[in-house]
Amino acid sequence: MKELMDPISSRLVLISLLFSLGFGDQLLSEMFGSLQSPNFPDPYPRETDLRWNVSVPDGFQIKLYFSHFDLEPSYLCEYDYVKVEAEGEVLALFCGREDSDTESVPSQQIITSPRSFLSLQFSSDFSNEERFSGFMAHYSAVDVDECSDQRDEDLLCDHFCHNYIGGYYCSCRYGYLLHSDNRTCRVECSGGVFRERSGVLSSVDFPSPYPKSSECSYRIEVDEGFTLRLQFDSNFDVEDHPDVSCPYDYVKIQAGSSEFGPFCGDRSPGTIETDSNVVNVQFNSDNSGENTGWKLMYTAIGSQCPVPEAPPNVLMNPVQSEYFFKDHVLFTCEPGYRLLQDGEFLDHLQINCQVDGSWSSRPPRCQKTDSRRKRRSLSTVLANHSLD
Amino acid sequence: MKELMDPISSRLVLISLLFSLGFGDQLLSEMFGSLQSPNFPDPYPRETDLRWNVSVPDGFQIKLYFSHFDLEPSYLCEYDYVKVEAEGEVLALFCGREDSDTESVPSQQIITSPRSFLSLQFSSDFSNEERFSGFMAHYSAVDVDECSDQRDEDLLCDHFCHNYIGGYYCSCRYGYLLHSDNRTCRVECSGGVFRERSGVLSSVDFPSPYPKSSECSYRIEVDEGFTLRLQFDSNFDVEDHPDVSCPYDYVKIQAGSSEFGPFCGDRSPGTIETDSNVVNVQFNSDNSGENTGWKLMYTAIGSQCPVPEAPPNVLMNPVQSEYFFKDHVLFTCEPGYRLLQDGEFLDHLQINCQVDGSWSSRPPRCQKTDSRRKRRSLSTVLANHSLD
Repeated sequence: MKELMDPISSRLVLISLLFSLGFGDQLLSEMFGSLQSPNFPDPYPRETDLRWNVSVPDGFQIKLYFSHFDLEPSYLCEYDYVKVEAEGEVLALFCGREDSDTESVPSQQIITSPRSFLSLQFSSDFSNEERFSGFMAHYSAVDVDECSDQRDEDLLCDHFCHNYIGGYYCSCRYGYLLHSDNRTCRVECSGGVFRERSGVLSSVDFPSPYPKSSECSYRIEVDEGFTLRLQFDSNFDVEDHPDVSCPYDYVKIQAGSSEFGPFCGDRSPGTIETDSNVVNVQFNSDNSGENTGWKLMYTAIGSQCPVPEAPPNVLMNPVQSEYFFKDHVLFTCEPGYRLLQDGEFLDHLQINCQVDGSWSSRPPRCQKTDSRRKRRSLSTVLANHSLD
Repeated sequence: MKELMDPISSRLVLISLLFSLGFGDQLLSEMFGSLQSPNFPDPYPRETDLRWNVSVPDGFQIKLYFSHFDLEPSYLCEYDYVKVEAEGEVLALFCGREDSDTESVPSQQIITSPRSFLSLQFSSDFSNEERFSGFMAHYSAVDVDECSDQRDEDLLCDHFCHNYIGGYYCSCRYGYLLHSDNRTCRVECSGGVFRERSGVLSSVDFPSPYPKSSECSYRIEVDEGFTLRLQFDSNFDVEDHPDVSCPYDYVKIQAGSSEFGPFCGDRSPGTIETDSNVVNVQFNSDNSGENTGWKLMYTAIGSQCPVPEAPPNVLMNPVQSEYFFKDHVLFTCEPGYRLLQDGEFLDHLQINCQVDGSWSSRPPRCQKTDSRRKRRSLSTVLANHSLD
């Protein structure tokens, strides 16, 4: 919420900067009022120079107009005139009784100050051929609608702008929080932990523009022995800078002792192979920009074990071209054989691909059985095994 | 200039009249603010009844709108609802998540209070099938532009209206003065004395509408012996009333001990023959009406003297059908005669029509001269006389 900050002292500073207060100057600081030529409605005196400095609070402009105007006419208003100035510029110069090619009278014209200050100068020269009754002017403070009159984009409200008399404030859509800059809308986007072996992360609202002023920290944590592979979507758009590396918004990845990034711009980081089972994705956005953000798919990758070689008559299941951490292989024997490992006869043997890429034991052997022994089929063994 | 009169106490009186403040009512009297359902942005509780009474100073209205709205839908908003009321009227009733045939949500709608008060009531019933996040509303005071929004003609500024934030004031065209009612423009129209034998008087600006709230006293004063004749123009238009005699604006004439009028309406008083050489014309106007007024021509009428009868051989100049006060007649004689008055011989004799309608003396006689006497022609006599 933007409040008027110490309006009196800031106005006094500005007034002293803008106006060199001279003799005969008057300061008008009410919210409305009127000003008139000396002696009005009687004719004004000659050789008179007067200045009214009108000042209203920040958040207001000044509207000025004339209800009566009757000054000596002169070419380019060289003799008697009313001059309205603000911010070092002449907003209006009036003289005479009616418009001519080179001079003008205020008529119904309304003069609006660019900001909250304005000065009106009245000057009469040493002689008048006739007597002129002068002028009557009125001013009032008018509210600036900052919400519809946003000249500086950096002061714009991110989501909603609420004007009130003398100021404005910003607010955010449902689900967003107003940042301490009182302008941008951030999100609460940290604290989530992804534990599945694969998943998708993205900037909030992707592929709509991501929230401003936000610091999002995402953690992916899978079992030890896995390493995480991150695959960024090719649709990648994070605010960048042509010369400086990611000074505004960025994605940064920390995986064990390795860091990746910061990433920004419109080129996707592609695939990142980390050597860690824990990854932190940090995404920071500043208070401006309308970029669509990023999305990534992660996969937990285990260590690879060598393809086991089955000795003669040994049956192996499943048969794969590659085996990774946590994969396992079940060995049985062809009919008429029995499974022997370390001098022991077994129904079956399961070996596991271990975190270090080695198998938990070597494959067994199969020995021809006595014909007396009862045969057991492979399918029976597998069925039993699945009940373990 | 219309100022806010004791705004705090008048507002408190109005608030207590308009709102029966109950338990859970909140008074919001800032110039802007926001209000939200309980626990927002978390879902609102059931069986809750809350009322916000929003009050801003006189000279302002209240603008209210919603930036988020999510209430339980129900037929005709029987269950949960937000109701906006002012001056005993329901300005809006909202519920649900989207418009339906029988219910509506606020969407982008801006509600404006008729005056400077408004109340918002939130109600939830004993159960909700889902959880609803409620609402977020914003209000701000907006200036009433009394100058463009004049509902009551009697409060209109007569000439110029100047709006400012929180009020307005009136001012008048050049040459007019603001009446103490701070609304109508009167003129200084008294003090003039008409001394010519004839002249014209009229209401100010005739035949344009005459100024309001003015008391004009005109005096016509001619030499004693004259009486004044007033002839009103047929174009006569003074504000009147169908039943009461001239209660608003009127022309009244006082001439010696006689009074004429009051006159009003659209029938000219016509010609008024007074018996006085001093007449006061009083013209009063009230603070309303656009009537064109009146105009009169006055003539000073003297007493009438009988037409003198010229004796034989007497020449009389000028010869008129009527003679009035201050007219005079010069008598001379035909050639060969001399003028005799009261035993004296004269070249010529002038008699004057007197204030009482009698001649200053009777006509002379003419006596035949001796032929010796030198003749004087009438033209010589007249030429001499004009040198007097």
